[in-house]
Amino acid sequence: MTIDNTTKTTVPFSREQLESVLKTRFFYAPAFELYGGVSGLYDYGPPGCAFQANIVDVWRKHFILEEDMLEVDCTMLTPHEVLKTSGHVDKFSDWMSKDPKTGEIFRADHIVEEVLEARLKGDQEARGLVKDANAAVQENADKKKRKKKVKQIEAIKLDDDIVKEYETVLAKIDGYSGEDLGKLMVKYNIGNPVTGDPLEPPRAFNLMFETAIGPSGQMKGYLRPETAQGQFLNFNKLLEFNNNKTPFASASIGKSFRNEISPRAGLLRVREFLMAEIEHFLDPLDKSHPRFHEVNDIVLPFLPREVQESGSTTPIVTTIGEAVSSGMVDNETLGYFIARIYLFLVSIGVDDTKLRFRQHMANEMAHYATDCWDGELLTSYGWIECVGCADRSAFDLTVHSKKTKEKMVVRQKLEKPIEVTKYEIDLTKKLFGPKFRKDAPKVEAFLLNLSQEELEKNAKLLKDNGKITFNVEGVESEVELDEKFVVIEKRTKIEHVREYVPNVIEPSFGIGRIIYAVFEHSFWSRPEDTARSVLSFPPLVAPTKVLLVPLSNNKELVPVTTEVSKILRKEKIPFKVDDSGVSIGKRYSRNDELGTPFGITIDFESAKDKSVTLRERDSTKQVRGSIEEVIKAIKEITYEGSSWEESTKNLTPFTSTQTEETV
Amino acid sequence: MTIDNTTKTTVPFSREQLESVLKTRFFYAPAFELYGGVSGLYDYGPPGCAFQANIVDVWRKHFILEEDMLEVDCTMLTPHEVLKTSGHVDKFSDWMSKDPKTGEIFRADHIVEEVLEARLKGDQEARGLVKDANAAVQENADKKKRKKKVKQIEAIKLDDDIVKEYETVLAKIDGYSGEDLGKLMVKYNIGNPVTGDPLEPPRAFNLMFETAIGPSGQMKGYLRPETAQGQFLNFNKLLEFNNNKTPFASASIGKSFRNEISPRAGLLRVREFLMAEIEHFLDPLDKSHPRFHEVNDIVLPFLPREVQESGSTTPIVTTIGEAVSSGMVDNETLGYFIARIYLFLVSIGVDDTKLRFRQHMANEMAHYATDCWDGELLTSYGWIECVGCADRSAFDLTVHSKKTKEKMVVRQKLEKPIEVTKYEIDLTKKLFGPKFRKDAPKVEAFLLNLSQEELEKNAKLLKDNGKITFNVEGVESEVELDEKFVVIEKRTKIEHVREYVPNVIEPSFGIGRIIYAVFEHSFWSRPEDTARSVLSFPPLVAPTKVLLVPLSNNKELVPVTTEVSKILRKEKIPFKVDDSGVSIGKRYSRNDELGTPFGITIDFESAKDKSVTLRERDSTKQVRGSIEEVIKAIKEITYEGSSWEESTKNLTPFTSTQTEETV
Repeated sequence: MTIDNTTKTTVPFSREQLESVLKTRFFYAPAFELYGGVSGLYDYGPPGCAFQANIVDVWRKHFILEEDMLEVDCTMLTPHEVLKTSGHVDKFSDWMSKDPKTGEIFRADHIVEEVLEARLKGDQEARGLVKDANAAVQENADKKKRKKKVKQIEAIKLDDDIVKEYETVLAKIDGYSGEDLGKLMVKYNIGNPVTGDPLEPPRAFNLMFETAIGPSGQMKGYLRPETAQGQFLNFNKLLEFNNNKTPFASASIGKSFRNEISPRAGLLRVREFLMAEIEHFLDPLDKSHPRFHEVNDIVLPFLPREVQESGSTTPIVTTIGEAVSSGMVDNETLGYFIARIYLFLVSIGVDDTKLRFRQHMANEMAHYATDCWDGELLTSYGWIECVGCADRSAFDLTVHSKKTKEKMVVRQKLEKPIEVTKYEIDLTKKLFGPKFRKDAPKVEAFLLNLSQEELEKNAKLLKDNGKITFNVEGVESEVELDEKFVVIEKRTKIEHVREYVPNVIEPSFGIGRIIYAVFEHSFWSRPEDTARSVLSFPPLVAPTKVLLVPLSNNKELVPVTTEVSKILRKEKIPFKVDDSGVSIGKRYSRNDELGTPFGITIDFESAKDKSVTLRERDSTKQVRGSIEEVIKAIKEITYEGSSWEESTKNLTPFTSTQTEETV
Repeated sequence: MTIDNTTKTTVPFSREQLESVLKTRFFYAPAFELYGGVSGLYDYGPPGCAFQANIVDVWRKHFILEEDMLEVDCTMLTPHEVLKTSGHVDKFSDWMSKDPKTGEIFRADHIVEEVLEARLKGDQEARGLVKDANAAVQENADKKKRKKKVKQIEAIKLDDDIVKEYETVLAKIDGYSGEDLGKLMVKYNIGNPVTGDPLEPPRAFNLMFETAIGPSGQMKGYLRPETAQGQFLNFNKLLEFNNNKTPFASASIGKSFRNEISPRAGLLRVREFLMAEIEHFLDPLDKSHPRFHEVNDIVLPFLPREVQESGSTTPIVTTIGEAVSSGMVDNETLGYFIARIYLFLVSIGVDDTKLRFRQHMANEMAHYATDCWDGELLTSYGWIECVGCADRSAFDLTVHSKKTKEKMVVRQKLEKPIEVTKYEIDLTKKLFGPKFRKDAPKVEAFLLNLSQEELEKNAKLLKDNGKITFNVEGVESEVELDEKFVVIEKRTKIEHVREYVPNVIEPSFGIGRIIYAVFEHSFWSRPEDTARSVLSFPPLVAPTKVLLVPLSNNKELVPVTTEVSKILRKEKIPFKVDDSGVSIGKRYSRNDELGTPFGITIDFESAKDKSVTLRERDSTKQVRGSIEEVIKAIKEITYEGSSWEESTKNLTPFTSTQTEETV
């Protein structure tokens, strides 16, 4: 950057101005606006789409190419059974409450939260602690990017005990079940915030979009809520593709879906979004990472569980090396990815002073997870979770394997064979067919899948009672077996191969959220004219790299413009020509809003000697050189990480007769 | 290519062998195979995913960058109303017939076609014209990539009249309505081909996946069947983004969905697929293209309507220039895109002897389309439509505009003002509110949207009867108006601006089908060992560009391998290291199946003098040079279009002591 941050922060950030620029320049827009729009759905226009494509390209190079990951592209349509096994059918839901009179639907936790917050603010106004309770609640709603549901607050003083109760409820608001929320609504008389009428008890609303696959309508399916399941289901094929070597990672970039109850405007909470996910499969007994030393000294702000529990939000700033060796971050591989996530985010334009890694609290984390950190970015809506990085242990492979009876394991040849003692079950298969007929395969599979604990228990039962009984899914009557059918014994064997279900470290990126954060972090207004704003994207991800500006519409300038266009096209450098009649200042100003890092001006001198002017977006500095020199500088800065100073040091500083102020 | 086509076609093509390679190397696999699979859904494994990404990248550069198109990324979830307007809710369907006994569902046109074909084959066997009717029908089913529904054919001679009737029906099979098909099934006693039981009358099955958006379940939506609608709906924003200049094109790359009644294995007919679509908006009065001269002389095989009607499939081979000037292809812009499509397909590995452009027959084409050509690729399943290129006139913008009452037009300043005579309607607005109350805006909008024809008719009615009446959607009672409310007059005015709805030329690519065709066109087996097959992808789109092969696991070779890896990674050249213990021939053989164009062998000489061997996949030729020289050659051939001969002419030919035969 050739401009210091002081200049960029002179004019206070205005979200309204940013949103106006993003809209005017068609970075994105509500989808189906012509038809009144559908909340939570957005289309990316040309600059937004190019920006997204560039970020995906950097992601692919930074993670997939650099680490030799196995990229897969799996379907979004997913049958019911898969998401039943993964737990999404049962647990991927929010609680909603309906107003039986108006038909309005509310998210139960949000409504409880807002009503209690509003009452507390009203209490504070009554006590003279805040001036305007309504304004305070509005501000809070803005922060959370929610529509304010409570329309009018009255300044009513509450009992001190009630204030305490409300505060306790609010502190625990994310942890309540639907039943809990229903009880709170009754207890505190929380209804429709406008009419006051009571709401129906909360019921679970699954956030997956449901559809039917095939013509019979009988195969229920969903649009995937994440890209991970496709990667898990292909584990065996990927392992084989990788010549059975571990650790390895798969990766996937694609759309996922979430049928939000009431999404608000903006890219932070949408119903269809682009994700990029990595599943790094590794040995549960060895979570070291061979390239950890490359990131060891990177300093990051961490917000671990203990700090949050103490009520503080001041991060611990330390190296990732220290964070891992102290045990704050569970293991090297998890730490390696946290550092790599940081490097990626900064390379695409995230302000590193507005980034932190927050550890999940015990109650936020799935029961099977070993550790989980969110990469959070600071925006005008507060800290937003943009990347998750979790150690999910062996959960996913285990559940799918158990459900489908397909092994998903790594077999490792042991250098020294080991002695293993365990329970084994032998079936007298010839007796199963006659006894169980068509159910025989089910019964056999059931028995062969018994866990060590179950085998131990049944060995004892069989010994004590001479028989054992089971209920087998899909088999009507109870299954009863005696010692003629099965033998269960504890045996000691020498094993030459170790077999294990790998653990998985899952870095998961919400690309749309990251994009929005980069918009905010890159946006500033010029102190000399606050109406002129700039999106200071790094050249590598900027939607268009070069604006080509002929000084006038004079025909003399056409050949040079054509020549420069041809070279840029040949070099695959995305550019736009602006030969509109408006002033050159206005044309540059428009492109500053589009985040175009470079301008090439073609004037009458250019027509004579093929020299052109190169302008840098942030500093508005200009230099002069031959077409080749200027394009070389653009290439170096954009694609090879060179600085403006370095790449233009041999070019001549230039002061335009057409100043920037000619806007 | 450094190997001639004779070598590649020595061993006859075997689809089984190709499919086995694609499966073993995990180019793609049935999705959810662990759960038994879902027909019509496929996952791309690492090489398939990389191949797809490379093809999309070439597409983006060839079309979007080269032509300065405006790329957008619109949502897949689409509300009902949008697809109702576009015609998809009513017309995007196939006819299905259910067997009420077994519950089986058949595509009605397929079942009629297959049963009649089977009877004709049985007749031919009875007449001694074919030997094995069953085998002949199986072959036909294979060609169409359908499961053979007719299990057993009896050799029964038919009346000559019946044979004629059957043949007529089969020739017209694509044109029948559901009712027609139902009548045919009754008339010819066509039922379940296995049991012979009658089927239910055909009913329309809409091929869109339906879902509900939002928690109330009341907003019906679909997964988009194409990417085009999002582009049409954003027309006004795109026009503004393009500084109101036309012609311009938008483009979109993304997944679309089609709930096929009974998709068959393979990538040709799937339920979720990647599309790339362009909408080129242009003046209906000027369909010339400024860059047409660049493609004018390209020679292509055309199968125009007349040739097909004559029953011939011999294409007319001529230049696109001639095709347009003779009127065979409707206009220059359509012709320009046909030529550009050809250049794209050939650059990614389509065999240009297996490509043709087939014009739609009059009954295939939508009523509004001006002209339409399919880019078809020849595969073992016959000619497959892989790209469509249609002139859709002003249909799409017109229907959305009419439905939403939003203008979607281009305003062109006229150099010479013109005199225009047309009907105009004036409303006495102050009378509308009192008379129609809340319906007033609806009535006004209705009147202002009347067409010239409607205005002319109503002007006469108003004059004759003193009043006119209308039924307005959303207004309960009939609207009656007299001359106090409206004036309708024919007026002549001078206009300085011409306003028109642009026409649209739509090139539309099915990426998955193209990928499958390139698989077939690139696949061959080495004559010296037919078990060794090769996928001869052009280096630009090959999933991996380089296989790095240390000759042995000796530690001496590690530093050079690391050094070459580092340089390849820095140069962003996708590569894989194969240091597995298997023979070098086996390693190359595996990568020939993956289509990896180059191999770099590292041997003990390399450890001494940093020289390495470069191997070319198709010819298996090897040359020797320094690491830098070899990587330079790879870069030139892969990314700069240079030939093997040109880029390796200064390197030393090399004969390995480890021959290819060491497999």
